[in-house]
Amino acid sequence: MRAEAGSAEQIAREDAFAARVAERSVSPLWVGRRGVDLTRPRSPATAAVWTYERMRPDLMEAGELVSAEDAFRRVLVLENPAFPGEMRVTNTLYAGLQLVLPGEIAPCHRHSQTALRFVVEGEGAYTSVDGERTWLHPGDFVITPQWSWHDHGNEHDVPVMWLDMLDTPLVGFLDTVFRENYPEKLQPIVRADGTSPARFGNGMRPIGQMSDRAASPVFSYPYARCRENLMTVAAGGAPDACHGFKLQYINPTMGGPATPTMGAFLQMLPAGFAGAEYRSTDGAVFCVAEGTGRVHVDGGTIDWGPHDVFVVPGWHPYRLEAETDAVLFSTTDRPVQEALGLWREDRSGGAGS
Amino acid sequence: MRAEAGSAEQIAREDAFAARVAERSVSPLWVGRRGVDLTRPRSPATAAVWTYERMRPDLMEAGELVSAEDAFRRVLVLENPAFPGEMRVTNTLYAGLQLVLPGEIAPCHRHSQTALRFVVEGEGAYTSVDGERTWLHPGDFVITPQWSWHDHGNEHDVPVMWLDMLDTPLVGFLDTVFRENYPEKLQPIVRADGTSPARFGNGMRPIGQMSDRAASPVFSYPYARCRENLMTVAAGGAPDACHGFKLQYINPTMGGPATPTMGAFLQMLPAGFAGAEYRSTDGAVFCVAEGTGRVHVDGGTIDWGPHDVFVVPGWHPYRLEAETDAVLFSTTDRPVQEALGLWREDRSGGAGS
Amino acid sequence: MRAEAGSAEQIAREDAFAARVAERSVSPLWVGRRGVDLTRPRSPATAAVWTYERMRPDLMEAGELVSAEDAFRRVLVLENPAFPGEMRVTNTLYAGLQLVLPGEIAPCHRHSQTALRFVVEGEGAYTSVDGERTWLHPGDFVITPQWSWHDHGNEHDVPVMWLDMLDTPLVGFLDTVFRENYPEKLQPIVRADGTSPARFGNGMRPIGQMSDRAASPVFSYPYARCRENLMTVAAGGAPDACHGFKLQYINPTMGGPATPTMGAFLQMLPAGFAGAEYRSTDGAVFCVAEGTGRVHVDGGTIDWGPHDVFVVPGWHPYRLEAETDAVLFSTTDRPVQEALGLWREDRSGGAGS
Amino acid sequence: MRAEAGSAEQIAREDAFAARVAERSVSPLWVGRRGVDLTRPRSPATAAVWTYERMRPDLMEAGELVSAEDAFRRVLVLENPAFPGEMRVTNTLYAGLQLVLPGEIAPCHRHSQTALRFVVEGEGAYTSVDGERTWLHPGDFVITPQWSWHDHGNEHDVPVMWLDMLDTPLVGFLDTVFRENYPEKLQPIVRADGTSPARFGNGMRPIGQMSDRAASPVFSYPYARCRENLMTVAAGGAPDACHGFKLQYINPTMGGPATPTMGAFLQMLPAGFAGAEYRSTDGAVFCVAEGTGRVHVDGGTIDWGPHDVFVVPGWHPYRLEAETDAVLFSTTDRPVQEALGLWREDRSGGAGS
Repeated sequence: MRAEAGSAEQIAREDAFAARVAERSVSPLWVGRRGVDLTRPRSPATAAVWTYERMRPDLMEAGELVSAEDAFRRVLVLENPAFPGEMRVTNTLYAGLQLVLPGEIAPCHRHSQTALRFVVEGEGAYTSVDGERTWLHPGDFVITPQWSWHDHGNEHDVPVMWLDMLDTPLVGFLDTVFRENYPEKLQPIVRADGTSPARFGNGMRPIGQMSDRAASPVFSYPYARCRENLMTVAAGGAPDACHGFKLQYINPTMGGPATPTMGAFLQMLPAGFAGAEYRSTDGAVFCVAEGTGRVHVDGGTIDWGPHDVFVVPGWHPYRLEAETDAVLFSTTDRPVQEALGLWREDRSGGAGS
Repeated sequence: MRAEAGSAEQIAREDAFAARVAERSVSPLWVGRRGVDLTRPRSPATAAVWTYERMRPDLMEAGELVSAEDAFRRVLVLENPAFPGEMRVTNTLYAGLQLVLPGEIAPCHRHSQTALRFVVEGEGAYTSVDGERTWLHPGDFVITPQWSWHDHGNEHDVPVMWLDMLDTPLVGFLDTVFRENYPEKLQPIVRADGTSPARFGNGMRPIGQMSDRAASPVFSYPYARCRENLMTVAAGGAPDACHGFKLQYINPTMGGPATPTMGAFLQMLPAGFAGAEYRSTDGAVFCVAEGTGRVHVDGGTIDWGPHDVFVVPGWHPYRLEAETDAVLFSTTDRPVQEALGLWREDRSGGAGS
Repeated sequence: MRAEAGSAEQIAREDAFAARVAERSVSPLWVGRRGVDLTRPRSPATAAVWTYERMRPDLMEAGELVSAEDAFRRVLVLENPAFPGEMRVTNTLYAGLQLVLPGEIAPCHRHSQTALRFVVEGEGAYTSVDGERTWLHPGDFVITPQWSWHDHGNEHDVPVMWLDMLDTPLVGFLDTVFRENYPEKLQPIVRADGTSPARFGNGMRPIGQMSDRAASPVFSYPYARCRENLMTVAAGGAPDACHGFKLQYINPTMGGPATPTMGAFLQMLPAGFAGAEYRSTDGAVFCVAEGTGRVHVDGGTIDWGPHDVFVVPGWHPYRLEAETDAVLFSTTDRPVQEALGLWREDRSGGAGS
Repeated sequence: MRAEAGSAEQIAREDAFAARVAERSVSPLWVGRRGVDLTRPRSPATAAVWTYERMRPDLMEAGELVSAEDAFRRVLVLENPAFPGEMRVTNTLYAGLQLVLPGEIAPCHRHSQTALRFVVEGEGAYTSVDGERTWLHPGDFVITPQWSWHDHGNEHDVPVMWLDMLDTPLVGFLDTVFRENYPEKLQPIVRADGTSPARFGNGMRPIGQMSDRAASPVFSYPYARCRENLMTVAAGGAPDACHGFKLQYINPTMGGPATPTMGAFLQMLPAGFAGAEYRSTDGAVFCVAEGTGRVHVDGGTIDWGPHDVFVVPGWHPYRLEAETDAVLFSTTDRPVQEALGLWREDRSGGAGS
């Protein structure tokens, strides 16, 4: 019955067999995998940048076009150019820039997706999470853990913008989407400002009180302190050849990442830093907090400056360079890949493939 | 600039804006989400069954059509009818029936995907994992952890078939696919048969020796023992209203699931068992070890008997019934969902939605 | 005010000061530590052996002297010769040989101490733990976790003896002793024999059911299986230079030791084995399951044979030798020391001190 | 052979038997336990106070009597009145007041004991731990983890005093004492001041860098921040009936206690606070940071004010009262008891016993 492997005759027979069993929802593995190379990741995503210069006018125009309340969330989603219309910036992550104008409210809801915020511009806005309010300042990193009630408001007189990072594609892929609106626009505030960081964020914890979920009970990481931190670390040692000085935001009640599905990082590149080539399996979205520089990736170069957002897909080699002292915020799905034993990195500079 | 929310004029303006920014890889969130219901999972997958009566002839025909070695793995993939051509049985899992004929070898390789095997028919075949061989018997549950070298062979005179479950769609979605062939057809055997279970599988462990990965160092769970186990548990208590008597295969060096990405279960339904309605966010693939019964799901009924395979998508309510005493093996991605805080179940019998 | 350090004058002054402040419950550290060497452990305990030949008649005499019920527990405690009257065999552990005669009952109680049993002689007795009964056979290892109700009985016609190992000195030192008698002689049996091992002891676990305490939910480790295990491991590799082939009993729901305060081990020494010198900070109590041999320790030699019990204090170097194939059971407080970061071992053969 | 249980004749026989087997290092359990009540802890330790008014002159006199270098550590040990000469303040803990005068050095060494410091008086001293220096201020909590090199110095012009808390009795009981002097008086400083808190102490952590030991990599918890923390928590909720507002110092890379053997706590009692009766199995040593009050314990009352040290033995019921707003530092062995499953508390106010 068998013809020579790879012969036209054999291939024709296999294809005929495949066509026949397809009706029964069956597919011969070796036919479907013919010529497919699975030796390494080949993300179809591409590197891309969204400059602040370009995004801010669009965002302000959106502000005129629709109210935060009518939009529920007035966000311009950053889509990977390889995935138009899919609302994802990497295979697993969603990114968007959100605008809240003075006096506006983004109403309260909760969902199974986790959201991270990195504040880009403005003062006077807040995010409330599970009954406690946090005021937002540029550079602050704020989390809204999965299934926590949250709403946003702007009580000042200037627009406030931030980068939203969500695990929406991942949660969608896993078919675990749940969402619920709060019966009122705003949830009631039940704890004084600063209670959560005082309880959990300073190397202390209320006796006998463990956090009841994987995400950090401290939901705000103020830029003032994180930046000072980073500068102290940078002053005290040699930079990593690829990353400069790089810290991860953690959950202080467990030591792990601030949220179970997304890792967030803050890194400092000294002026003149020319990083070695690097790649890892987790695609990264960067937001520039300070400084200017460029990234070499996908055979080209992307220049970046304050508030620009750029994406580097997983396993695409890249090199970071800084013109001035620079601070970059970034987010990836590394915690997911690490939890499942799938994360890898490569510092060989392309010696492998 | 704003027209009334929801008015034709406003919608037209928003659509025009969306079309304009789309060129810049930007998408207004509230436009894209118009009318989309995200309140709960709505898996497009459907329930389906692959009867042994139907599959066995196809598999034997595949055996005539191609050798195990030429095919590398002679597997008929079970595709969810809602995902033709995608080689997945649920959103995250791959299932296939593999045949190894007397004298054949399925050559050695390794990959970042984890594979589970549940033996359906035949005696005399083995799987080798990282230098140790395990002989396969019907009902045995065997794992090949991610990145472990493995090959299969049949040294007896009857065909051997098993169900393969892999996390291929998940690992593909995460863009963490790595694969490597061993330089020779078979890896060398470096430990006596039975060494791993003796070291780790009987409530003991070599002093000072921890396992170096999340997957169980015991890679074979023989049916003879697991079945006796299940019957002892079944003899000693009342069945769960939805599941009968249900055990999970675990990693005895950690207590968690046998592998970090897929959970595997063995459950016993006493003759006449009529289960209550149940749903959970993890879609399940069942393989019947013994007995006959049916499952009510997606508005229909699927009858099942020995060696049949059937799938129940996540969050689709279902009810299990047994005609005779029955034993079901099943696999889901529950460990992934639990690790990320996303797993939910519902025993309310459809009271919610 | 100060005289030369170490001078008689200075010492006198310091002593006078010490005497004066002693009235106020104050003590100068440097005075109290004068000449004390704290560079390494110097356990005052000594190595010792209790031969079965010597112990059995004493135990049988105790059986005539008092009933199990009147004694509550008819145990002859093995006291380290360096600690007469202190009921401890090492600094932290208690050891005793218990006898239950045909028809006797050792009544039900519970306590904050953990107890381990290693059966020495006899068939037909049981231990009940939290509503489940386990039948005892020579060589079986059985645990009664802290605060679990337990009673023993002998329903056969021969005496049954076992070695009891408890953390009594440790729990006493920590001042955490609690004890309670059950209102009746025996607790009710609420689960069929074999339920706990079926639920947790074979690489499986009831879905959704975690154990609620640190100790293993499997409280019996039958010798038949453990011995077979050990022999398989011994057949498949080279012995450790100091320990031969040595396995630890573990809690299969966590991977850690069977109990949080005491580690238990089973090791096989092939005939002719001459072990290298070894010491670790945990003192060990050995009970010979099979075979004959000797231990070189404390400058002398102890010969051992079946059912003998011997102790090696912590940080005392020792060497094990086997005349015949031998199997040794042992217990130490290593889990405590490891949990606190204090455990050390030394395989240098006395090169250090 | 048996006489009536409890009869003079039977007791005499048992005693004779006990005397005879004692020669063989054997002791009948039921004889030794006759009349002993093991139903609950009965710590022989007593409550006690060491007032600052009384201790400071003694400490200054010690300063004249001996140099820090000659004493190695110039410490006045606080001995529980029930344990004279034993250098322990509870069953498991050592407490002492240490003085370092201007210009002095306490030379570098390391040991398997863990030490905690709570600064009582003075500015201008430092502790160096594993190559990094921390400057001490009143109220600062500083740890020197087991086996870490550490030395102290005073570079200012005023005396500096602190409370030392060590697990010396515990480590001694476990026979795991190791100690080593550094070849020079001071270890070299290899990291800038503030590096460790910047790396690990602010909700961040260097990427890919886990701590390699159970103790916190942040070894200083400055009072300024901890106090502010405590006051924020106190402002935001109702006090615990027994403890007022009480926080535990934690290891931010794990969420557990700052060290594996000793827990440290800071609590705020508002003026007029009258605590409910409380007891737990861990004996506690308190040091008053601010304010005045009293503790009712052991049938008496102890008044306390700034810098006083008092001890409450385990399972002795006590009630705290504050005259003024007060801040108390305290240390216990609770982490040990919790790790071993032995810790208990009782808030019933003596309803039990």
